Amino acid sequence: MSKSISSTQKAYLAGFLDGDGSIYVRLKPNPSYRFGFQIAPYIVFFQSQKEKEKFQKICDLVQLGHIRERKDGILEYIVNKQEAIRKFIDWVQPYVILKKQQVALMTEILNKKQSINNYRDFQELAKLIDKFREINYSKKRKRRILTP
Amino acid sequence: MSKSISSTQKAYLAGFLDGDGSIYVRLKPNPSYRFGFQIAPYIVFFQSQKEKEKFQKICDLVQLGHIRERKDGILEYIVNKQEAIRKFIDWVQPYVILKKQQVALMTEILNKKQSINNYRDFQELAKLIDKFREINYSKKRKRRILTP
Repeated sequence: MSKSISSTQKAYLAGFLDGDGSIYVRLKPNPSYRFGFQIAPYIVFFQSQKEKEKFQKICDLVQLGHIRERKDGILEYIVNKQEAIRKFIDWVQPYVILKKQQVALMTEILNKKQSINNYRDFQELAKLIDKFREINYSKKRKRRILTP
Repeated sequence: MSKSISSTQKAYLAGFLDGDGSIYVRLKPNPSYRFGFQIAPYIVFFQSQKEKEKFQKICDLVQLGHIRERKDGILEYIVNKQEAIRKFIDWVQPYVILKKQQVALMTEILNKKQSINNYRDFQELAKLIDKFREINYSKKRKRRILTP
């Protein structure tokens, strides 16, 4: 797990998250889970493979995830362990501006996830997870339009 | 011109610049300028119109530029006054990680721009400006590939 970081480093990461990061939760079909789905939370950053060395500096600062190299030359820095996500959120929450809603929703989902007792609880959680689609939509749309 | 901001706000902006911002200089053909070109430096941030309210918060924090609404629904926050760019760079330079090179190149260009005496000086400056294409390329490429 990561060392502690300074307040300016936390603020930097909040800005980077607002600019480049993605927060979402996936419901992955998986019959070995009680209600047929794994609840998989993610915080992900993206960078071109060409910028690997610089990107590594940010990853070394975070130390809460792992790098995945996609076949298309994009690096993903993936934070998907629950405790890691909680820690990252704890760092950036005071500073984040654009993704306040996503950060709050992620926290709500992680908390509710702890106390699923029946299928109704699970359905309510699934509805919360679906909210991400709605609030993340405009950002995805932005990327699509920006591309020349 | 902007009020002074805290170190965590500066660090936030450095992270946002690394994630979402664009730094570049354009040579705009303009016969009223001595060597036929206007040297136009830019720091730009992008956001979907849907996120205008939140984006405005970042712009209010910066207070060094103006918002432009593009026809395609994208908002641009444009910092293009020389003194505003210098001030912004002064804020983020200690914290920026991915765009260190761009920030240094912008500073070099703004300094050289002050002391153009002849066409050779101008040509050297044009070469520096061309470097932006090279170092910004991978980021653009990233955006292109990321788009689903």
